[in-house]
Amino acid sequence: MEVPMPNIQPHADNAIVWHDEHLYLLDQRILPLQTEFIRLNTGDEVANAIRDMVVRGAPAIGITAAFGVVIAARSVWEKEGAGWKEAMAADLTTLAASRPTAVNLFWALERMQKVIAGLGAENPTPRLLAEAQAIHREDIAANRRLGDLGADLIAGPTSVITHCNAGALATGGYGTALGVIRSAFAAGKIKQVYADETRPWLQGSRLTAWELNQDEIPVTLLIDGAAASLMARGGIGWIIVGSDRIAANGDVANKIGTYGLAVAAKYHGVKVMVAAPTSTVDMSVATGADIPIEERAAAEVLGCGGKQLGTPGVDAWNPVFDVTPASMVDAIVTERGVVHRPNAEKMANLMTG
Amino acid sequence: MEVPMPNIQPHADNAIVWHDEHLYLLDQRILPLQTEFIRLNTGDEVANAIRDMVVRGAPAIGITAAFGVVIAARSVWEKEGAGWKEAMAADLTTLAASRPTAVNLFWALERMQKVIAGLGAENPTPRLLAEAQAIHREDIAANRRLGDLGADLIAGPTSVITHCNAGALATGGYGTALGVIRSAFAAGKIKQVYADETRPWLQGSRLTAWELNQDEIPVTLLIDGAAASLMARGGIGWIIVGSDRIAANGDVANKIGTYGLAVAAKYHGVKVMVAAPTSTVDMSVATGADIPIEERAAAEVLGCGGKQLGTPGVDAWNPVFDVTPASMVDAIVTERGVVHRPNAEKMANLMTG
Repeated sequence: MEVPMPNIQPHADNAIVWHDEHLYLLDQRILPLQTEFIRLNTGDEVANAIRDMVVRGAPAIGITAAFGVVIAARSVWEKEGAGWKEAMAADLTTLAASRPTAVNLFWALERMQKVIAGLGAENPTPRLLAEAQAIHREDIAANRRLGDLGADLIAGPTSVITHCNAGALATGGYGTALGVIRSAFAAGKIKQVYADETRPWLQGSRLTAWELNQDEIPVTLLIDGAAASLMARGGIGWIIVGSDRIAANGDVANKIGTYGLAVAAKYHGVKVMVAAPTSTVDMSVATGADIPIEERAAAEVLGCGGKQLGTPGVDAWNPVFDVTPASMVDAIVTERGVVHRPNAEKMANLMTG
Repeated sequence: MEVPMPNIQPHADNAIVWHDEHLYLLDQRILPLQTEFIRLNTGDEVANAIRDMVVRGAPAIGITAAFGVVIAARSVWEKEGAGWKEAMAADLTTLAASRPTAVNLFWALERMQKVIAGLGAENPTPRLLAEAQAIHREDIAANRRLGDLGADLIAGPTSVITHCNAGALATGGYGTALGVIRSAFAAGKIKQVYADETRPWLQGSRLTAWELNQDEIPVTLLIDGAAASLMARGGIGWIIVGSDRIAANGDVANKIGTYGLAVAAKYHGVKVMVAAPTSTVDMSVATGADIPIEERAAAEVLGCGGKQLGTPGVDAWNPVFDVTPASMVDAIVTERGVVHRPNAEKMANLMTG
């Protein structure tokens, strides 16, 4: 029987929705010109949605993968009954292989696997769904908390630059970097947000601008290459970005272009804030050099919005992330607290304290 | 009578063509996926072609404007006869107003006006055409000379980054930054060229990659935001760029993104070379702060390849150029010689020496 698409409000805070036993994702590849939800029916479909960037942003990937485990478990339990655990190993592997850099993916799968380990032959869906929903709920709460902590760091009315999209769309809701910006704007501390368009996927132009517009926070777009010039003009107090993985020493993997922004920020005396929940911190990698950096197809650079524009057949270097050394970061803001001028000791205190 | 389109070879060295009493421009807005020449019949059409970026690049704009004067003078002389000089003041104003930053435009118009001043009531076309062709020919010769001088600065096999397009397409032929790269590659000094795609017009992806491909020089594209990360990986010896205007103190206006590249280059110990003919040097502006920087429509940032992708209605900051201070430039390479670590005194020596 065909399940009709529910009428979900297409809002950034509403991009991952569990509704009537189904997972719905707001398709971020076609935002903002089209607002369409996709229903995902199998673990494979969830893995494909992550790989194809229907959903992106480290915390959002983690939450989506958790719901993917629910869907996969339900399906194998219906087919296999008591033997469901063995039968779903392939789904877990596929989900884990969907993207390599965002550690929240592995963190969420680990949480789900712990629940799986505690289950027997009973229907696993209720417990797994409760865990996925807890991961989702906790992420939103973490964002609200770190949003307020980050806003506290911003002294007075200033303008900020953000890169890519670390908003509600990239998380369970509210956002990390945009969570800080939302909280700071509400407190009267932000005059203007400048959003890097963020090639090649234009998350800044398509997603961040859309979110800030929904919130009526003033936003001006610029090409990624213009950010250093903007800083040279003065008036920019902070660079505020999210992260896909933070190493044990405080090195930060984030969308390609973040490192160049940080280099320019240091040159111009602009402060750098990284806003991320502790689920983004990976104490198992010592430094940023150990973080696997996804490289995607040259076609993404040669084209734009799915249309080929560049010289056919030319090679392109297309790393999705870069690493900003801890020494360039003024503050890592998490729901557990702020780490100023991060290093290995301070990060360890944050994570174990 | 309809003049048939001539069969001109669409090559980067062949982008501004005077053929059978007509001016033809290879339409750079649609390269490389389409190679079409446009015939220009009036001064206004030439001004529009410059404004609309059918032709771009400071030296190419200057040469095109010079041919625009020829076309305009021929037309007014046919209509007005002896009164042609007064009648063409409007054409000169329109051509001068076509774009504000490239000083080669004003330099070329000044050269043409000097010729006009020396003419009487006779048909001005032969003398003006000879001057425009001289400007064109001299630009190519200057490029070849500065290409060799720039190549001499490159010590050994290394990789380089270039930004935007400062190739044959941006000049009368051969190119400035790409002229250096061509000469250096021929001398075995360049292993790999990395070309910034150069948003919003993608001159790197569309034009630079196309030119280097035609020359069989290995080129890899990257998004503008990835250049700093590329430098951090090592192996980049030089940033080599062109310029749209160089101030009397050696400050360099060039395509937006150049300044950020230079900041990153200084941080990573990469050298910065600016390759430009002396027609790009404007001794009448003391510093880069006095160079007018064109700002274009927000729609260029919100879209890509003519297609809207970003959030409708969002504002964008779209400066076309930025200014790199002389202190960040290791060498300005001109056809008259190389200025190492430029300053006002050295620039004055170059221009008067």
